[in-house]
Order: sequence, then structure tokens, then C-alpha cells
Amino acid sequence: MDAFPQVLLGPGDDCAVVEVNDGGPILLKVDQLIEHRHFTLGTPLELIARKALARPLSDIAAMAGTPIAALAGCVMRRDYPQSRANALFDAIHASGMALGVPVVGGDIASFLDDEGPLTLSISMIGRVHARRGPVRRSTACAGDDVYVTGTIGGSFLESPNREFVFVGGGKHLTFTPRVREATWLADALDGDLHAMMDVSDGLGLDAARLATASGVRVELESSLIPLSEPTRRVLHAIADGEDYELLFTVSRGTALPTHVPGVGTPLTRIGTVVAGAGCVLREGDRVIDVSQKGFEHA
Amino acid sequence: MDAFPQVLLGPGDDCAVVEVNDGGPILLKVDQLIEHRHFTLGTPLELIARKALARPLSDIAAMAGTPIAALAGCVMRRDYPQSRANALFDAIHASGMALGVPVVGGDIASFLDDEGPLTLSISMIGRVHARRGPVRRSTACAGDDVYVTGTIGGSFLESPNREFVFVGGGKHLTFTPRVREATWLADALDGDLHAMMDVSDGLGLDAARLATASGVRVELESSLIPLSEPTRRVLHAIADGEDYELLFTVSRGTALPTHVPGVGTPLTRIGTVVAGAGCVLREGDRVIDVSQKGFEHA
Repeated sequence: MDAFPQVLLGPGDDCAVVEVNDGGPILLKVDQLIEHRHFTLGTPLELIARKALARPLSDIAAMAGTPIAALAGCVMRRDYPQSRANALFDAIHASGMALGVPVVGGDIASFLDDEGPLTLSISMIGRVHARRGPVRRSTACAGDDVYVTGTIGGSFLESPNREFVFVGGGKHLTFTPRVREATWLADALDGDLHAMMDVSDGLGLDAARLATASGVRVELESSLIPLSEPTRRVLHAIADGEDYELLFTVSRGTALPTHVPGVGTPLTRIGTVVAGAGCVLREGDRVIDVSQKGFEHA
Repeated sequence: MDAFPQVLLGPGDDCAVVEVNDGGPILLKVDQLIEHRHFTLGTPLELIARKALARPLSDIAAMAGTPIAALAGCVMRRDYPQSRANALFDAIHASGMALGVPVVGGDIASFLDDEGPLTLSISMIGRVHARRGPVRRSTACAGDDVYVTGTIGGSFLESPNREFVFVGGGKHLTFTPRVREATWLADALDGDLHAMMDVSDGLGLDAARLATASGVRVELESSLIPLSEPTRRVLHAIADGEDYELLFTVSRGTALPTHVPGVGTPLTRIGTVVAGAGCVLREGDRVIDVSQKGFEHA
């Protein structure tokens, strides 16, 4: 990227950061949503559209940014009904309005066949926090306290044979991206907010990614992790994925309220950053490597 | 879009225009490329990647913009070889370097099945021309002269049964987006450059779109239209699509050189803007409605 001085941060974080027009940096993110993979056949269009937009918005929030605009690409099978295609794009626009993101452009294409999964691609740009700037995942420091917003787990249910079962109307379709929470954190903590990312693939896996990017180790304390109902087992919850909560680290001992003022989302200290690598869970005397506890969506 | 004052231009033109950071507007565009639909199975990855980036870049050029950065989304079948996926992303980055667009982020997903067409989604942001601003398709005026860059036709060959035959290594894979030409036009003509778009779906269809957006009629003069080798028939060429040339209108009588200085791309006057609607082709005494002469890529 050396040839392009406008690129302040390339691939690898929740968003890229690019300088435009000497007007300061913006955030960029693309995310895709595939039928069968990210939603089931019977999912209402409104929830498909909402999730498609909410996922990259969660990444904008994870950098402490706020949304500017989105673009929507959609590929459908050749015989997809025109009325349903129109309804989908209406739903995308409506979801954008509801989430505070204008959808300013789009492209509709069709597969040559009468089959093929509905495929959505949403690109989003965002403003960085004016004072704090983009909050990266690679800037955690040994000694930091580790926090999450909200609760973990509950997007999937554990079935008797220990396979994950998609919860139809669950959190993975209806979550609210933590834009207001992230903005509050950057406002309140400024330079004491060291690193942040969103938890999309499982707390264990994502915390390990933050650890790797920062060259540190994250130690989670099992008894501290706030679980979503009806989840009971921490090891299940941290592998669940689709939480779309913020995982962030702050200077050791930074005082934080129990809930984000004016929003009400819980803020919970769940562990510590130490020297080392990966992510471990402390349960009493046990230390469990949970760096692989997660879910690859690709 | 009234709720979002940052949106200066929504869907309907080559790009959207959005205000960021009080730093002035930027251009946004998303475009998708689908196997079988936009390229054939045997097309080299390098050419697939190049076309995927060149198409939205042509839209940035069509607004007289210059590229800032791109995002790449890719969906492949589940058993797509990892080495080939890596090679594709390498090719996307390399094409970006060659075309002057850093690819700053991406998302790879897979269909749940072992089948499914390779699907690329490229989003691009661009700077507007500092002095002229974004050149829209909706601002042509009756009396304007109508121009194109380069030559028209030749992406497809006409077969004996008059169906279009895809030309494998043809222009549709190797065209150069007219970024330098568009910048030169905006530099040289400023306010005399009234309206512009790129010709992607056929000169007849696209000129009619410009006419409709501007509330005018475009009259093309058959004998003036510069044809690509080996095309002979104007009516075939203007329906061909995938030209990725600039179609633009200028104040009547504006003096233009025959080629863009320093670049060499031909500039050819091909007609006139008049009051009315749609696009017609004058061939001697005949006046042919060519508003539908084109190719819908979706």
C-alpha cells in the first residue's frame, strides 16, 4: 500500500481507514450475507435486509465510528420474482433509515440459472471519532482491563448432539449495532480506550484475534462473563458467535459505570491483558485455551 | 434521503455523491461480476479481477472523478480451492495497483454447496474533480454537442444467426477506464462539460438514459459514430455494450481536439442534444429510435 498514501490502515482490522479530500480519514467496510449460510430460506426480507446492514455497521461501531452511507449489491436467481426483488431493496432502504445509514447506491444482478442462493453485499463508509480517531484492535497493552458490552451467547442453542442449532428469530437477526455505546466510550475514555473490535465469530476466537493483532494475551475470567439467556455454559457462549457486542480494552483500573449512560447497555469487565499470546479462560484453577472457540462464517 | 443531509446525490447516476467530514463530497459505486453472466468459466483470474475493478472505476471516471480506494467481496462455491481463492485476491490487489486503486478491505464467503458461480462485488470511492465537481448525466442541455471517447462496438461479434457472441479476450475484459480522459475534459472544459456517463450497456440505451435523466432527446448521426474494428454495422455497434467509453455533452460549438492531449484517446462528435425524449439515430433520411439498443447486464 506504500504507493497509496491515502491508505492509513489496510485489511486486517474491523474497517479500513482511508484519507479523503484532506478532510480527514473515513472508515470502509464490506460484508456479505448468503442464503443458507447466514440466514435460512424462510427468513423475512426485513430481517435479511436488517442483518445485512447491521453487520458492517457493527464494524464501523467497533472502530468507534459513525455511519455515513452504504452501498448494496444483490445477486439473485434468474427467476427471482421482480416484486420480491423490489421488496428486498425497499427493506434495505428502510433498514438503513432505521439504523441511521442512507443506502445511496446499489447493483442488482442475477445468476444465469433458476437456482442459486440470495447473496447480499453491503459496503459502508463511516466517520471516525473526531477526538479519539479510529480505535484499532491492535493497540491493546499488557495490564489493560478487558470489557464487553451486553451479554454473550444465545444466538445459537446447543442441541443434544452438541451441534449448534440456529435460533430462527434470534439475536443474530435483531441485534443493535453498538454505535452509541462505542461513541460514548470514545467520548468518555479518549486515550484510555486502547483497543476495540466487535465479537462476531465467538468471544474466544475474536479475543485471540485482538491478542494476536496487539502482540499480547487475553485472559478471560469465566465467572465474570455475562451470559445471554438461556445460555448457561460459558464455554458454549464464548464459541457461539454472532454476538455483535464490543470487546475492548482500557487502561488498568479505568473507572467505568455498570451501564452506558443514556443507553443502558451493560459494561462488564471480563478479564485482563497480559504478556503472551492467544486467549485463555480461567475457571477456578483451570486455564483453558479458548483461542479457537468460535465460528468461521466464511 | 431527506433525513440524511450528507447525501448529495442518491441512486440513479453513475455514482452516488456523499459529503464526508466537511471535507467535501466523495463518489461511491458498487458493481458486481458474476461467472457465466459477465465472464466465462475459462477466463484467467487476472482478467476477472481486472474487469471487476475496471467497471466501477469506469463509473468513477464517468463523474470526472479519480479513485481513492476499493473494497472487494467474493463468494465462491464451498469446494473452491484455497490456492485459487488466494490467487484471485492477489489478482484483485495487483489489478488495483495497476489501475491506481488500493483495495483496502474485503470479505470472502462461500456458498454452502459445492456449486455456484464465482461472484465478485467491488465497491469504490473516489474524489470529485476539484473545480468542476461531479459531472452528472442529468445536466445535458438542448443545443449541446454530443461526444464519445474512443470507438464503439467490438466487444461482441455478430454471429450468422444474429445472436451476440462473446469475444473471449475482447475489449470487455481489457478496457482501460477513461479516468485520465475525464479529468482532462473537466480540466479543459469546466462548466462547458455539461453531462457525462459511461457507455456500458450500449450507446443507444445509455444515450437514452442520459436523455431521460436530462429531459432532452439525443440525436446521433450514423456517419459520425467511430466504430471499433472489426465492426461494420452502426446498428450493431451501438447495441453492443461493454464499451466503457465516455459519452458526454458540451456547450454547442465548444472546440475540442481530435484526441485527448497526452493520452491519445479519440474524441468524436457524434450528434446533438435537442428538445424531446429518447435517443434516435439519423442515417441519411431515416430516423431510427435506438433507445432500446443495448444490453441489460443484470
